[in-house]
Amino acid sequence: MPHAHEVRLTDYIRDIPGFPKPGVIFRDITPLLSSPVAFQQAISAIADWAAQRPIDVVAAAESRGFLLAAPLAIRLNSALVPIRKKGKLPYKTLRETYDLEYGQDTLEMHEDAIPRASQVLVVDDVLATGGTMDACCRLIEKAGGTVAGCAFLIELRALGGAKKISRYDRFSLVQFD
Amino acid sequence: MPHAHEVRLTDYIRDIPGFPKPGVIFRDITPLLSSPVAFQQAISAIADWAAQRPIDVVAAAESRGFLLAAPLAIRLNSALVPIRKKGKLPYKTLRETYDLEYGQDTLEMHEDAIPRASQVLVVDDVLATGGTMDACCRLIEKAGGTVAGCAFLIELRALGGAKKISRYDRFSLVQFD
Repeated sequence: MPHAHEVRLTDYIRDIPGFPKPGVIFRDITPLLSSPVAFQQAISAIADWAAQRPIDVVAAAESRGFLLAAPLAIRLNSALVPIRKKGKLPYKTLRETYDLEYGQDTLEMHEDAIPRASQVLVVDDVLATGGTMDACCRLIEKAGGTVAGCAFLIELRALGGAKKISRYDRFSLVQFD
Repeated sequence: MPHAHEVRLTDYIRDIPGFPKPGVIFRDITPLLSSPVAFQQAISAIADWAAQRPIDVVAAAESRGFLLAAPLAIRLNSALVPIRKKGKLPYKTLRETYDLEYGQDTLEMHEDAIPRASQVLVVDDVLATGGTMDACCRLIEKAGGTVAGCAFLIELRALGGAKKISRYDRFSLVQFD
């Protein structure tokens, strides 16, 4: 139950059956982004969880992760580190390749993005299979950082991503079976 | 000159010669994102400019634009609307195709993203030729919104983007010739 002054965040997540392919229900967060009340409540809830530990850096993979990471970095007075698709970052990068349902994808982060021994909060909008988050965390550790926690707006429990990143503290604001 | 308590934002922009191709100097904003002081100062400066007019919505194209739009939407207590590459948004979309140096690109926005007569601030990290911003503004107007202003972290004056969007109020925090 939300607190008296809070909205129910699931009311701001729109189900889109058949996207991106038949049989899938896509959880569309754009109504939540469009509501200042709902979006600010979501950012505050993630920030409150994260603030229980020291956070030096907030990192996220493009592009929906950026929508959460930027306000969280400000709220936590932390550095903001973008993790991007291959070829997008202009300076020297570290890379991680990970498996998708069909094929592979590669994420990159600037090699000087994470000061050694930094405590890093990694955020994304959705935890599905966990492949993207796992790759982000491996990049951060390759750079010498420590993953202090992984936070998500939405967790899709049936896809089992929690197991893939079970070595880290995890926070999911809204869960779907 | 920055105010006594302010940092010089150009100190946080790294020049990368030869990216993405020979002869180009890329202005890398990741050092600015990595500095809580510099990033918060940049967001505050854009918010202060934008707050001179009523803003209902902050919109931006993926993905670097998201890094500015999300904290600005919170600061301005406005809706946050993501504009994305073709095929990424799950619901019904409006589309705008625009010319690149070689070929074309298409941006999409959910058709219900902008309530009619909304005042919209459109933001991006860099104003170069203005093609992306022009396409974003046309999408917003197609949806029935009004572009209240266009704001950038960096303007590359030599590329002439200001002319392409001269019909709108424009704010560029840092300018390069």
